[in-house]
Amino acid sequence: MSDCERVLPRTLKGCIDYLPADLIALKRLIRKVEDLFEKYGFVPIETPALEYLETLLGTGGEETNKELFRFESPEGEQIALRFDLTVPFARLLAQYPDKLKAPFRRYAIGPSWRADKPGPGRFRQFTQFDIDVAGADSVVVDAELVAVMCEVMAAVGAPDYCVLVNNRKLVDALLEDCGIADGARHKHVLRIIDKLAKVGLENVRLELADGRIDESGDPIPGAGLDRQTVDKIVAFIGLSGGTRAGTVEALAGLLPQSAAAKAALGEMRELAAALDALGVSESHVKFDPSLARGLDYYTGPVFEVILPDAPQFGAVGGGGRYDGLVGRFMGRKIPCSGISGGLDRLMAALEYLGAIQKTKTTVQALVVTVGKTPKTEVLKIAAELRAAGIRTEPYFAKKKKMGMSDQLSHADHYGIPVAVIVGEDELAQGVVAVKDLRAGKEGRQDIADRDAYRKAGKTGQVTVPRAEMVETVKSLLASD
Amino acid sequence: MSDCERVLPRTLKGCIDYLPADLIALKRLIRKVEDLFEKYGFVPIETPALEYLETLLGTGGEETNKELFRFESPEGEQIALRFDLTVPFARLLAQYPDKLKAPFRRYAIGPSWRADKPGPGRFRQFTQFDIDVAGADSVVVDAELVAVMCEVMAAVGAPDYCVLVNNRKLVDALLEDCGIADGARHKHVLRIIDKLAKVGLENVRLELADGRIDESGDPIPGAGLDRQTVDKIVAFIGLSGGTRAGTVEALAGLLPQSAAAKAALGEMRELAAALDALGVSESHVKFDPSLARGLDYYTGPVFEVILPDAPQFGAVGGGGRYDGLVGRFMGRKIPCSGISGGLDRLMAALEYLGAIQKTKTTVQALVVTVGKTPKTEVLKIAAELRAAGIRTEPYFAKKKKMGMSDQLSHADHYGIPVAVIVGEDELAQGVVAVKDLRAGKEGRQDIADRDAYRKAGKTGQVTVPRAEMVETVKSLLASD
Repeated sequence: MSDCERVLPRTLKGCIDYLPADLIALKRLIRKVEDLFEKYGFVPIETPALEYLETLLGTGGEETNKELFRFESPEGEQIALRFDLTVPFARLLAQYPDKLKAPFRRYAIGPSWRADKPGPGRFRQFTQFDIDVAGADSVVVDAELVAVMCEVMAAVGAPDYCVLVNNRKLVDALLEDCGIADGARHKHVLRIIDKLAKVGLENVRLELADGRIDESGDPIPGAGLDRQTVDKIVAFIGLSGGTRAGTVEALAGLLPQSAAAKAALGEMRELAAALDALGVSESHVKFDPSLARGLDYYTGPVFEVILPDAPQFGAVGGGGRYDGLVGRFMGRKIPCSGISGGLDRLMAALEYLGAIQKTKTTVQALVVTVGKTPKTEVLKIAAELRAAGIRTEPYFAKKKKMGMSDQLSHADHYGIPVAVIVGEDELAQGVVAVKDLRAGKEGRQDIADRDAYRKAGKTGQVTVPRAEMVETVKSLLASD
Repeated sequence: MSDCERVLPRTLKGCIDYLPADLIALKRLIRKVEDLFEKYGFVPIETPALEYLETLLGTGGEETNKELFRFESPEGEQIALRFDLTVPFARLLAQYPDKLKAPFRRYAIGPSWRADKPGPGRFRQFTQFDIDVAGADSVVVDAELVAVMCEVMAAVGAPDYCVLVNNRKLVDALLEDCGIADGARHKHVLRIIDKLAKVGLENVRLELADGRIDESGDPIPGAGLDRQTVDKIVAFIGLSGGTRAGTVEALAGLLPQSAAAKAALGEMRELAAALDALGVSESHVKFDPSLARGLDYYTGPVFEVILPDAPQFGAVGGGGRYDGLVGRFMGRKIPCSGISGGLDRLMAALEYLGAIQKTKTTVQALVVTVGKTPKTEVLKIAAELRAAGIRTEPYFAKKKKMGMSDQLSHADHYGIPVAVIVGEDELAQGVVAVKDLRAGKEGRQDIADRDAYRKAGKTGQVTVPRAEMVETVKSLLASD
């Protein structure tokens, strides 16, 4: 290997290397999210990254089909990396009907892949945290999904967040009344509506009618709807503000008196009541008639999670009801609803918002040696500290990097709070020096009054008998 | 989507779906492993699943090259799924020399992929837990890696375990003396030695000489070594038993007086002393001169973790020192050593050994409704229980699945311990019924003496004012 030509170390385009400072924060966040998910009655499930192509193809829509990382199994079968966690879950429900009896709540946290264009907060490998309820057709569970996501956003320290909620059935009822039933034209109109936040109401109006020219001068073909229909749709999606219940009633005035419209409005009223029962504030969950969501498999309520103070990151979560997807894999339908968050994008946005506390290490104590201290003694000290639950790194490096300044600058570089220093003299006397490395640093006056620190004095260093080592380190750590 | 032809739900060959019972156990195990890794001073790092092909190619050896899942990025570049966590770590060290200053200890837990033949405990997607130390050339850190792995095996409840340790430098010194230096022949001999446990000493002897016919009648070509050389090698790898220090001295008698041999024996003596200092018992870590390990990048000590009571699962972990690998990506070498465990294989083996405690759910309380209890009330009860930290699932299903027996059989199927039952009467009276679903079941006599249970009586059910609901549920759960 050493004879090979040098290979340039590069991260794959659109992917992330998580170094300790970011990953320690991310893992803390994941534990919080998992604990919340379990509190809401969700249990974990994990599926492989790879699926047979036919499992994934056509579930997410044309764009998702195009974005699949596809290849072949050793047996020559078409396979692909999953693009979300929802489709594999639908497969599971169909594959293990006896074990995963409905109703069933699951959570999953794991990577998915899309071969799309990377951008800010947009990655080719991205980790989602996902919850789904299978077997419940009531939108009450949709309200629960939204409530969990609100708790997650609060728990991870998002300064502000908003879950937008809509229902595909509302739009469908409106479009049905305009003579636009299921089909290519219906999908086209949904795609146009979904662009509202990006292009604005006027451009949506143009696209619904005869089309427009975009900023690059390229023509965007229109859906060819007549003036009256365009007005209806624009009035519908332009409706905003007011309470959730108020928005539903305002929408009722814009929708036809059809059975479909009544059913859709009924669901939204139930959803509003359930959100109230769960104590979800009006400011954090809003009904937004323009929300469509890109994926094809949604059939009812849809959700999108945004951080109003970091709009450039786009949605940090989203989901909806997909009552048809499981039927794709089994003889009968199982109603399902789910919501996912994008962990990498959320982290990037939270970091932008200053809501992430970073530490470069989880190590609490570094064992530092002076002179020719036998390595076996260093190991014994480390073992003693570890046995007391102290996260300990004994410093071992190449010979020329074993100087005291090398060792202390190592602790400084990674922000290790405490050093246990041992030399031949200390060994002979049965003592160790314990040093608070935060002592004397800016902003560390808060610990200056503590007992342990006073004992350690200005240098933050104290020499104690070996038998007191663990307690001394612990008391210094406790002062943090 | 509902119009699509039905797709057969299938798990990709060689991959695993983790359903709750297994995954809950696996996640518990992962948390234990992570906590241990951090106690030993390792910090987390994560890299993407995908790497440029050139990063991976040629690092693991010919066989690994063949087993890569390869494909193309949207830009037409050759990419592949990583086959281990070590090579990406070596890339990182070269790519972020300022952030990841040596010495540096990292851990990672994540999936890797190999397109090989699946078998018992052998998967195409498998999760590894991995620790590595960069920047330390002393084998003292190799001893630490072995010690961590021993603690991991004890913590996950392996009834017995053994870490086998060898040093490539020992074999190299022997082969050098036989005139077999680095090169194709050297690799061939190592591969033959590595098969000892599988094929036995006599077959190794034949393969080292003129070859043999295997059980299927196929010829296996030999390495063509002369009688004397074969004897030397066989004596060397056949040496077993005795203490670690004893094995080193016995090996010293079989090795030449070369500088390489002296250096190799010196390392093994230091390793033995370090293992003693760390309190690692002779029965759990043994020196085994026949251990070679398949990967090409090892340069010094190599390790393999086996479960003596479950030999059919093969090694559940392994690793070694790879001082040359980082140099592949950067101008200078960084000495490294690492050890990985195979999480899926370990789980499978522990399950075979009866060392895994399974529960089908993490849910502690199911909210069960009688009659026409409003769903909003169910949500409020669930919210109250959750606010007290109780993992709660409110039962919501299709209308025809809302009977009391449906709900209780749901709790039974998933093993949910406690039900909170609420009907219109209870609502009107401001009470709920709390039922211990484990009551009356076999093996639940142990809780029959507890206060909460006595209150609940033989049926395990008690009706309490709403204000006492949380405490009643908690006391029942505490009796578990």
